[in-house]
Amino acid sequence: MKPVGILGGGQLARMMALKAHELGIPVAVFSEKADDPAAQVVSLHHPGRLDDRKALEAFLRSCLLITFESEFLDAGLLTKLAEKTKTTILPAPDHMALLQDRLTQKALLAKHKLPTAPFQPVADEVSARDAVRELGLPLVFKKRRFGYDGYGTFVVRTRAELERFIHNSLDDPHGFIAEKFVPFERELAVMIVRGQGGSALHLPFVQTHQENSRCLWVKGPLKESASLNRLAKRLESFLAKMGYVGAMGVELFESDEGLIVNELAPRVHNSGHYSLDALTEDQFTLHLKAILGMKLETPRPLSRGFAMWNLLGSSDATPSWEPTGDIAFHWYGKSENRPGRKMGHLNALGDSPEKALKLVRQRRKYFQV
Amino acid sequence: MKPVGILGGGQLARMMALKAHELGIPVAVFSEKADDPAAQVVSLHHPGRLDDRKALEAFLRSCLLITFESEFLDAGLLTKLAEKTKTTILPAPDHMALLQDRLTQKALLAKHKLPTAPFQPVADEVSARDAVRELGLPLVFKKRRFGYDGYGTFVVRTRAELERFIHNSLDDPHGFIAEKFVPFERELAVMIVRGQGGSALHLPFVQTHQENSRCLWVKGPLKESASLNRLAKRLESFLAKMGYVGAMGVELFESDEGLIVNELAPRVHNSGHYSLDALTEDQFTLHLKAILGMKLETPRPLSRGFAMWNLLGSSDATPSWEPTGDIAFHWYGKSENRPGRKMGHLNALGDSPEKALKLVRQRRKYFQV
Repeated sequence: MKPVGILGGGQLARMMALKAHELGIPVAVFSEKADDPAAQVVSLHHPGRLDDRKALEAFLRSCLLITFESEFLDAGLLTKLAEKTKTTILPAPDHMALLQDRLTQKALLAKHKLPTAPFQPVADEVSARDAVRELGLPLVFKKRRFGYDGYGTFVVRTRAELERFIHNSLDDPHGFIAEKFVPFERELAVMIVRGQGGSALHLPFVQTHQENSRCLWVKGPLKESASLNRLAKRLESFLAKMGYVGAMGVELFESDEGLIVNELAPRVHNSGHYSLDALTEDQFTLHLKAILGMKLETPRPLSRGFAMWNLLGSSDATPSWEPTGDIAFHWYGKSENRPGRKMGHLNALGDSPEKALKLVRQRRKYFQV
Repeated sequence: MKPVGILGGGQLARMMALKAHELGIPVAVFSEKADDPAAQVVSLHHPGRLDDRKALEAFLRSCLLITFESEFLDAGLLTKLAEKTKTTILPAPDHMALLQDRLTQKALLAKHKLPTAPFQPVADEVSARDAVRELGLPLVFKKRRFGYDGYGTFVVRTRAELERFIHNSLDDPHGFIAEKFVPFERELAVMIVRGQGGSALHLPFVQTHQENSRCLWVKGPLKESASLNRLAKRLESFLAKMGYVGAMGVELFESDEGLIVNELAPRVHNSGHYSLDALTEDQFTLHLKAILGMKLETPRPLSRGFAMWNLLGSSDATPSWEPTGDIAFHWYGKSENRPGRKMGHLNALGDSPEKALKLVRQRRKYFQV
C-alpha cells in the first residue's frame, strides 16, 4: 500500500504521523530537513522544499493520498500537481486557497451566514482610512496571508496608532483586511471534522488563553449551551455544504454580541491537542480517518475536565524536564529552542476543567524550556 | 543526544518507539528488515541480525542506552558488548539470562519465595520419568529456552501421553523443566515496573484469556483483594532486591492453592497493551522512563473497566477493517498475515471490565484478519 503523504515536517505533521503509525497506515513526510520534528518519526522521509515543483510531483506520485499541516502552501500549484499525478489532496487545495487568504475566508463566512466581525479589504492608505471611517476604532488590521500566532495582526486603538500602522506596517504584497474589534470575554475554540460524504462532527468546545498572541493553555469541555450547540450545527453544515474533508480548527470569541467566528484553519489545530489524552479519539486520528474515507464517530471525553499547556521556549538553552506520571507529555523534538517557540505540550485530566488546568499549571514547573 | 536503541523490530519495539517519539526521546531500532513493524516507524533503523556481533557492536556504540523487546537474545554476548562499548543495557543482560531460561527463572522465584508450582529439571528420559514420580500426573513439560505462546509447552496427562512426549518431543539441546500442573480457575497478569533505585510499582491486575495457547483477550482491573495486594508487594520487592530496571510482565494462575506465579518476562508484555488507552500512563512510557532514570508514578485507570482484544491472523489474506470511534485500534504493520499471528489489538473502556470486554468483542467483527 502506498503511504499517506504529509506536506510539512513540524509538530502537527509529527503527531499525525504517530497516529498513522498507531493505525498501521503507512505514512511519508515531505519536508526540508531530516531532523524536522515529523521527519524524525518516519522511515519514509522525502527531503524537499514545499515550493519545489519537481520534488513535490515525485512525492505526490509516491503517495496514495496527500494531506498537509499548514494552509500556507501554493494551492494553485497543488491543484495542478494533483491533477497531473492523479493524487488526491485533502482537504482540497481549493479549500486551502479560500482559507489561506483572510479576505476570501471572511467572504466565505459571510456567505454562509456564520457570525463574524464586520470587515473590509485594505490595500493602501486610502482604503485603510476608509476602513476606520466605516468600522470605527479600535480596529484590527490583519495581513491577508501568512499570519499566525499574532504575527501579521495589528490592533489599532487610536489615531496615532493608525498613523504608525500606515507608515510602518501597511506594506504587504497580498494586502490586509480590516476587522471591527470584538471586545471579547473569552476566546473559545472547537474542532470540526468531516469525512467523505454526509455530515460532520465536532469535538468539545474549549476555552483558549493567549499570552503574547500565542496560545498558552486550553481547558474544557465548556458546559453545553443552546448557543454553542447551535453554532456547532451551523459549522458542521458549513463544512458539509463546502464539501470539505478533514479536520478544521475554529477560533471563536465569546462577546456581548454572542459567539463570533474569529478564524478558521483547514487542518488539525493547537487548540485540539488536548484530544490526544482527553477523548476516546484524537483530532489526528479523526483527520486521518476522514481523508481515508473511514467512518467517523464523535469521541467521548474520558473525564469531566481536561487542560492542555503549551511548552513555549523561553530561551535558546537546551530544555530539560522531569515528567510526572499524572500528566501526559508530548515533545516535538525540535532541534533548537527559541523564545516563544512551541516545543511541546502537556495534557492533564481532572474532575473539572479548572482542576485539570490547576494540575497542568503546577506540573509546568518541572519543564525548563 | 544519542538515541535509545531497541533490539528487535516487532510490535513491542514498535509501540515502544512510538511512545519514545511522543516523549521526544530519540530512538533507533536494530532489526533485520526495513519493513519490520518497528523499523517502519523510526528514521533511525539499523539493519542487522541479532546474532551479528559486529553489527550489534556498532549499534551499541551509536546509542545512549539499549533495551530490547525479546528476552531470547545471547545475554553473554550482550554483556561483553555492553562492557566493550560502555553502553548500558536495561533490563540488565544478567537478568535477561536468568529469566530466558525457565529453570533459572524457577530457581529465582523459589529463592525469593514467590509462590510457584513445584518443578524439576528434565534432561532426558530418566529425569522425565523421575519428574513424574516426584510431581505426579498431570505434569507440564516446558522447553527451558525459546518457548512462547504455548510453543515448547507440553501438558502430559496420562502414561500414554508421557511415552509420546518422551519419544516425539523430548529432544532439545537446552533441555526442559517439569512443572506440577496447576488446575487454575483464571489466568491473571500484572505488569511491574522499577526505575533506577528505590521501589517498584505495579499496574492493575488483569484477567487474561488464552485460546490455542495464545492470548485472545485481557480485561481489568481486577477487584482489589488482600491476596493480590500482598503479591504485588512481594513482586515489587523482588524486583528491588534483584536490582531490576524496566518493565516486567508477570503471568499468574488463580487456583485453589491461591495465586501462583506462572511466568516472568523481562520486558513489556502483551497483557499490558490495554494500558495504552486505559491508564493515565502506559507500560511502554513507564518502561522508557524506568530505563532512563526518570521518576515513576503509578498511573490511574481512566474508567471502571477496560479490555484488550488481540487481532490474531486467521489466514494469509490481506486484512481489512473499519475501525469504530468507540474503541482504540493498534495495528502493527506486519507485512504478512498468518494464522495465529498477532497483527494488532483493540482496546476498549467501559463501566466495568465485563462491559468493556463486551464492547470490544462486538467491535472485533469489523476487523477481517
